[in-house]
Amino acid sequence: MSEPSDAVMPGGLSRIRGTVAYDGKNFSGWGMQPDARTVQGVMEEAISTVMRVPRVVVQSAGRTDAGVHARGQVIHFDIPHERVINMVDMAYKINALLPEDVSILELEETSMDFDARFSALSRSYVYLIYRGVRNPLLRDWAHRSWLPLDVAAMHEASQQLLGLHDFAAFCKKREGSTTIRTLMRFDWNEQPDGMIRVDVQADAFCYSMVRALVGAVLSIGEGKNDAGWLVNYLEGKQRRPEVFAAPACGLTFDSVEYPPPSEYAARIKETLRMREEDDGAY
Amino acid sequence: MSEPSDAVMPGGLSRIRGTVAYDGKNFSGWGMQPDARTVQGVMEEAISTVMRVPRVVVQSAGRTDAGVHARGQVIHFDIPHERVINMVDMAYKINALLPEDVSILELEETSMDFDARFSALSRSYVYLIYRGVRNPLLRDWAHRSWLPLDVAAMHEASQQLLGLHDFAAFCKKREGSTTIRTLMRFDWNEQPDGMIRVDVQADAFCYSMVRALVGAVLSIGEGKNDAGWLVNYLEGKQRRPEVFAAPACGLTFDSVEYPPPSEYAARIKETLRMREEDDGAY
Repeated sequence: MSEPSDAVMPGGLSRIRGTVAYDGKNFSGWGMQPDARTVQGVMEEAISTVMRVPRVVVQSAGRTDAGVHARGQVIHFDIPHERVINMVDMAYKINALLPEDVSILELEETSMDFDARFSALSRSYVYLIYRGVRNPLLRDWAHRSWLPLDVAAMHEASQQLLGLHDFAAFCKKREGSTTIRTLMRFDWNEQPDGMIRVDVQADAFCYSMVRALVGAVLSIGEGKNDAGWLVNYLEGKQRRPEVFAAPACGLTFDSVEYPPPSEYAARIKETLRMREEDDGAY
Repeated sequence: MSEPSDAVMPGGLSRIRGTVAYDGKNFSGWGMQPDARTVQGVMEEAISTVMRVPRVVVQSAGRTDAGVHARGQVIHFDIPHERVINMVDMAYKINALLPEDVSILELEETSMDFDARFSALSRSYVYLIYRGVRNPLLRDWAHRSWLPLDVAAMHEASQQLLGLHDFAAFCKKREGSTTIRTLMRFDWNEQPDGMIRVDVQADAFCYSMVRALVGAVLSIGEGKNDAGWLVNYLEGKQRRPEVFAAPACGLTFDSVEYPPPSEYAARIKETLRMREEDDGAY
């Protein structure tokens, strides 16, 4: 949210909002890292080239971990106002430069007070689990469990975690980051084809939090732990290595919820107040 | 169906039936070819190794083309009776040697008059088509169409092809093969998520027939041809290069229908009578 120099950008900047899908298998996650292939890295390169600007910074609603997929990731980036073209054409040109495992589904011009990360009210993820023999058609999109799973017990135990809590037991601790989050949804459902679908929604997540939540609840479905253990684990606020983080391949970033445009600016202020520059708030 | 030599196999042979799934992307189809990676090739290698026999021949219900996937391919193979072990263990051991893009879902011991190919009453395929911007999560499993498609018109036109016809216009002609088939189902449905699902069932298919059928009907959905053209094209019995074969990535071999076990042998005789050693009858 830094201001552009008028000398460089006489016409000012325009903010573009986009929806992005990617197959996370061959990415080291969303966020830029030296010498790693990241979604942010390939997107910034493609957009900079198409828009003919030295470097565009692409912000996202969720910094997904290595191997995690996205169906409805939301991004924003700023380009000089005079470079704005028809949004369908812009998406088409950027997609032509993007590799086949990432694609812009939609672009729209938005207001400068929209921020993909800080305007978000919540993020929604879907985790898929299948049982039985390994299936080549599912291997990149769902985690396989070879154990019997009690889906009703997992759903019931998960409901205890809803609400405002310190989720430190499910987060990799980072300096200067809070681990307090509001979990809004944590539903386990068995679908007609036998696939278990987990829907997880929170105001924000810290690094590896969804996978840690799913992994902890799986231990209940397997009969290794019970619902009481889960509450004790949450309240212990300490990550323990024996609590398995469910594999990244089963996780997809599904969607982001935003307030109406008139509340974008107020939401950014509120998020920043709550997080106080918390670098882990995605 | 050749008889084993008693000198080599004193205990005789046992016939094993299996259900197999594969991601066709990195296979040159089902059938063995020199210097190509085929599903049959990798399966025969794994099964021979586990069963400690010089070479097992694996027969399938459908010889899928390069790039075509399978969810419920059916196979059979024969092993010496004294090598038969528990079927769950056998599948587990074979899967441990198979690459990650192919897997045996189930094995069972069957009678020697079951033949995965010749006992089959029909084969069912599913073809998936999505519209709009390319989507990395769908790219390996569905064909993308960037044109508006009239799904009702495609479904209606497809119904004209049901029944017994010479499908030469949709087949790559092979010496000694008939192109007469009975098409039992050719349904086009738009699913709630916008995906178009095509269900195709016939007694048997010749090489590239499903893709040619789907491609021809797509030209109707795109408004390039009408329903009358499709009937004329069928009746012309000549394959024409301008009729597009839909890409392999969207096609999945779904399932095979067999008669009850008491009719296996009669069905083999009937199939062979109809086909007269037709090498293209899958």
